[in-house]
Amino acid sequence: MVETQKSAGAVIIGDEILSGRTKDTNLNTIALFCEEIGIALKEGRVVADDEAAIVAAVNALRARYDYVFTTGGIGPTHDDITAECIAKAFGVLLIHHPEAMAQLKEQLGDRFNESRARMARTPEGAVLIDNPVSVGPGFMTGNVITMAGIPRVMAAMLESARPLLVGGPKVLTEVIFTSVPEGDLAAPLGEIQERFPDVSIGSYPGYRDGRIANRLVLRSIDAARLAEATRAVRAIAQ
Amino acid sequence: MVETQKSAGAVIIGDEILSGRTKDTNLNTIALFCEEIGIALKEGRVVADDEAAIVAAVNALRARYDYVFTTGGIGPTHDDITAECIAKAFGVLLIHHPEAMAQLKEQLGDRFNESRARMARTPEGAVLIDNPVSVGPGFMTGNVITMAGIPRVMAAMLESARPLLVGGPKVLTEVIFTSVPEGDLAAPLGEIQERFPDVSIGSYPGYRDGRIANRLVLRSIDAARLAEATRAVRAIAQ
Repeated sequence: MVETQKSAGAVIIGDEILSGRTKDTNLNTIALFCEEIGIALKEGRVVADDEAAIVAAVNALRARYDYVFTTGGIGPTHDDITAECIAKAFGVLLIHHPEAMAQLKEQLGDRFNESRARMARTPEGAVLIDNPVSVGPGFMTGNVITMAGIPRVMAAMLESARPLLVGGPKVLTEVIFTSVPEGDLAAPLGEIQERFPDVSIGSYPGYRDGRIANRLVLRSIDAARLAEATRAVRAIAQ
Repeated sequence: MVETQKSAGAVIIGDEILSGRTKDTNLNTIALFCEEIGIALKEGRVVADDEAAIVAAVNALRARYDYVFTTGGIGPTHDDITAECIAKAFGVLLIHHPEAMAQLKEQLGDRFNESRARMARTPEGAVLIDNPVSVGPGFMTGNVITMAGIPRVMAAMLESARPLLVGGPKVLTEVIFTSVPEGDLAAPLGEIQERFPDVSIGSYPGYRDGRIANRLVLRSIDAARLAEATRAVRAIAQ
């Protein structure tokens, strides 16, 4: 019997992404990380620095998926409101986490002040996630992993969170490039998809050196079924 | 009196984005387009090629915002299910749009077949959105604009949709770079934000040539208030 995968959602927090000023890359990093440890990323939401929006997104996704990753809004300034939003979402107190406070005081010395102490705020009961890159840790509250928005820091926090996460069987992938146009492949490809409901088959049109090079992507956690479906697709893609 | 902006949400559809295989760039393109015509992009959702997920996201966002943009899933293959999902979301019939059928037959000649006819499917009552780049149009159903997933095609369809959209006052932006660390700026910056609730002030930590170069971004549709807030921020950022 094939095990099932764990599931996850992601909440990308930040006005600067919705204004177009910053291109989000964190969703992709989270997606690849999830793939690697056998978690199926099911949904991403990009929301503004707005309490109601963040709380609603976190609550919708944490009820639906095994894990939720959030990025952004855990710095020292007024627009960093993620910690209090997660506390509101869970209905718990927002505290200054003693371990985080001790870390910050040690790392910052006499630069420690009230604003920087904001970076030690977590929902009560949260577990810290180490930040090996800069100051201010991430944290895990229930099934919600809260990380920084800066891509380099976010990636480091994901690695720190790895031991806290339970993965599942990895999705195996086969990719077939074909010069057969999508409109000609569509009917036989659809038939193969019907015969293999346990293999997800995607068709992505593309070009390479000015010639059609469509990408057919087959994905499954069952190696034998994947191999069988791949043989079937190869036969129609030549 | 200052007019209010129109609002929008975006639904980015595609398994390949959630698997990490493809990096989405369409959300950023839509964000910049919205900025340009005075629409505030409030939320983005990335969902799988899954009917229930697409219908739920479209219905949530179309009720909440003036416009919804969707990308992906309007090609000829079995995994292209966006047209039927939009029809389900609106509770209307899915039809072969006569004008789109005529276009496809003319453009494709004897390559026209049943699979390619899928690209002419729209919810009943939808208005076509011209695709000047490849075959298969986009369409607008109520307040929902449905476009292709290929970035080049999506960008062209956005331009085609422009006359169908009513914008509002543009957001004006000022950017200040500062070497003052975020943790030292946070308190006075927060006070300025409280005095200017009609100006959104964001603080984004960063480095340039190994030195602190934090970016302070001020945004408002009111030019006078923006100028006043910008003067106040400059004074603390030196």
